[in-house]
Amino acid sequence: MSELYHVLGAKQFTKDELEQLFDNAMEMEKVVASGGTRAQEGRIMTTLFFEASTRTRLSFESAMHRLGGSVIGTENAAQFSSAIKGETLEDTIRIVSGYSDVIVMRHTDIGAAKRAAKVASIPVINAGDGAGEHPTQALLDAYTIRKEFGYIDGLKIAMVGDLTYGRTVHSLSYILANYQNVMIYYISPDNVRIPDNVKRYMDEKGIRYVETDDLDAVAGSIDVLYQTRIQKERFPSVEEYEKASGKYIVDGELMSRLGKQTIVLHPLPRAGEITEEVDDDPRAAYFHQAVNGLYIRMALVNKCLGEARK
Amino acid sequence: MSELYHVLGAKQFTKDELEQLFDNAMEMEKVVASGGTRAQEGRIMTTLFFEASTRTRLSFESAMHRLGGSVIGTENAAQFSSAIKGETLEDTIRIVSGYSDVIVMRHTDIGAAKRAAKVASIPVINAGDGAGEHPTQALLDAYTIRKEFGYIDGLKIAMVGDLTYGRTVHSLSYILANYQNVMIYYISPDNVRIPDNVKRYMDEKGIRYVETDDLDAVAGSIDVLYQTRIQKERFPSVEEYEKASGKYIVDGELMSRLGKQTIVLHPLPRAGEITEEVDDDPRAAYFHQAVNGLYIRMALVNKCLGEARK
Amino acid sequence: MSELYHVLGAKQFTKDELEQLFDNAMEMEKVVASGGTRAQEGRIMTTLFFEASTRTRLSFESAMHRLGGSVIGTENAAQFSSAIKGETLEDTIRIVSGYSDVIVMRHTDIGAAKRAAKVASIPVINAGDGAGEHPTQALLDAYTIRKEFGYIDGLKIAMVGDLTYGRTVHSLSYILANYQNVMIYYISPDNVRIPDNVKRYMDEKGIRYVETDDLDAVAGSIDVLYQTRIQKERFPSVEEYEKASGKYIVDGELMSRLGKQTIVLHPLPRAGEITEEVDDDPRAAYFHQAVNGLYIRMALVNKCLGEARK
Repeated sequence: MSELYHVLGAKQFTKDELEQLFDNAMEMEKVVASGGTRAQEGRIMTTLFFEASTRTRLSFESAMHRLGGSVIGTENAAQFSSAIKGETLEDTIRIVSGYSDVIVMRHTDIGAAKRAAKVASIPVINAGDGAGEHPTQALLDAYTIRKEFGYIDGLKIAMVGDLTYGRTVHSLSYILANYQNVMIYYISPDNVRIPDNVKRYMDEKGIRYVETDDLDAVAGSIDVLYQTRIQKERFPSVEEYEKASGKYIVDGELMSRLGKQTIVLHPLPRAGEITEEVDDDPRAAYFHQAVNGLYIRMALVNKCLGEARK
Repeated sequence: MSELYHVLGAKQFTKDELEQLFDNAMEMEKVVASGGTRAQEGRIMTTLFFEASTRTRLSFESAMHRLGGSVIGTENAAQFSSAIKGETLEDTIRIVSGYSDVIVMRHTDIGAAKRAAKVASIPVINAGDGAGEHPTQALLDAYTIRKEFGYIDGLKIAMVGDLTYGRTVHSLSYILANYQNVMIYYISPDNVRIPDNVKRYMDEKGIRYVETDDLDAVAGSIDVLYQTRIQKERFPSVEEYEKASGKYIVDGELMSRLGKQTIVLHPLPRAGEITEEVDDDPRAAYFHQAVNGLYIRMALVNKCLGEARK
Repeated sequence: MSELYHVLGAKQFTKDELEQLFDNAMEMEKVVASGGTRAQEGRIMTTLFFEASTRTRLSFESAMHRLGGSVIGTENAAQFSSAIKGETLEDTIRIVSGYSDVIVMRHTDIGAAKRAAKVASIPVINAGDGAGEHPTQALLDAYTIRKEFGYIDGLKIAMVGDLTYGRTVHSLSYILANYQNVMIYYISPDNVRIPDNVKRYMDEKGIRYVETDDLDAVAGSIDVLYQTRIQKERFPSVEEYEKASGKYIVDGELMSRLGKQTIVLHPLPRAGEITEEVDDDPRAAYFHQAVNGLYIRMALVNKCLGEARK
């Protein structure tokens, strides 16, 4: 049991592991293009979503099917009858461990994935645990950057929007901290700045970063613009929300000020932060990014299960 | 992308295409009887139901499995977390396109399937878009008629019930308009008559039809009785509803006035419009009709995906 | 159709059938350990859950996948749109019969499984019908006992908790009634005693049993302690509930008074009736028991479908 490979948080990866994973994901693109594989035939993934996240769930389920495996699961904690009857997460995990070969879990509580991994007899992949982490999102973000540029070392990356509650920017920061000479711009309204614990981590790893609320000032000098959503409910009034969110909309005008090689990413779904006129711009990489999630997840599932059973 | 084969509405089919599809569906019956095929192994269907329709969904999912393929999906728009967060249908479709090989979509809005097809990079099959169309239902209806009689040309077909809001009778009319010398009886209470746009389409195609509220008068001279539900909420009062719906119940008495070869169809579910005593009558074809949906959907999936990947 | 093999209730099994089934389940453990089988490839299971029971559903779906088959289904009666529109259970079953090869049904009404089997053209497995039966749970319970001891004849088995509404203890009693010289202790608070109809059945079969509310008195002399939940809502007041349920908690102290070979079972989920300190005791068999459900269900699916299609 001690040898199980879990995916719990973005900090667990070394640079070597990341590069190996990205190479494997690249391989998976070829596998999908040539019709998938039966490498995981007979294996079962359980998708245990205590909170709905249809896109993430479908991406994992697609990954398992593209690998030839099967999927069982549930989409709704409220419907997980055992939880209603007072069952602990630990008991649920112990039992589901007996039904499948890998658990993909989404939960509302920070640390839930770690608790699950502690009692599971099969690998656990964290598909988001509340305000905690969402490591596979960060991996696909970083994979997209490496794929678009061929490397990550030395890139200037702006993360824009709600940097306090947007867990993807935290996890992505931890991933990027493995690379040499990256420069991060944390661009946000004052009330949703990047948290101190993230900054401390970056400091420890010797990563340079700047905090600012001025996207325009840095637009011309960045390689990656990682846009995120800003949620209305974080602001004291609608006026302040609109003032804050309006400043960061990626539209044709902003695109004209980005570099020719700068790419635009977004974890999606978007809700106005990137206007549709941007979609056809070759620098708009957010739809490629979504598909990259499939390849990264295939590579992760292979890593958890081992590629060949025979 | 321009070569993608979508199934969006009943009007898109020519007679040749219909006959080819029906022949393929016949072939699928043999495939199922002999244990299914692995022709679509490695391919993935996404069932994207923004409105529950369990029977239709199960029928499509069964079709994909009988073909050896896999299925991912969601049953409930309210749970499609991205939609809740304000994602457009177009963005959802763009992303799901990257996870699978064909999308089967049910939506509440007229025209939703066409909007999806516009941005999808994989085929889209319309499994019902609000008050719009439900082409695969119409195809299985027509397939059932052709299977029972061996042909459709020249048949007399009565559609009974709510002809205003029952979209299946609209789609079926469009399909039948491809055939020679058919005669349609639109039989309904006055307040839920067949819409003008359907009649105009039939006029353009030179299809003969009669509108009446008198099922008894035509019962003896029709080949097909296509019964549908009448919904209470369409009527100003319960009394008027009961008066109207009571006139069209298919029971043993009515069966005695139908011809010996006349068949009875219903898109199901039924709720009293056909009494259970009719179930054992050899002219009751509505349960065969339901199973025929499987064969038609298998043939459509093969048409969308191409039969052989190897 | 008369030859279909349904699993409807615990009383349907003879001792020979049980022993054969348990042997087959043992075989399935080996199959799973060696990576599963494709024996049921091309076959489809429909899981029709009119009431959520995630654990039971996942266990059946896992069983089908481990056998190489596919699964379609629905988790929620409220979402089964046809039922909402007034469709009878019989019509639903008739149609689903055309989409798959075996139906696993959970329903809220006693007798629902029998009604389904009456009209189904494929085998029906009862996964719980209201306050009625839950035969596959009883089979996995009995299988666990036989596996742990190597036999069932002659064992002393205590069933503890809510014996009135806990349907698993009824179904398990019917299974055990096939064995020689078993002794059952029905241990419960006065207001939730084992029902008369169960006792009559045991009397007819010549099975010895004792009713008592005193677990401590028999703890030292039993081979199996089958613990169940006691539901608050069965008691007139919280005080009476706490007094009753508190008497039957299996904790370290109680374990010290059980025999060295005595095993502890629980259908799970638990909610305090067995404390976590018991989990590491080698006599705690309830997590093995949960996994045994997979093997029993694989054996049952094979029995319903026949092992080889080719």
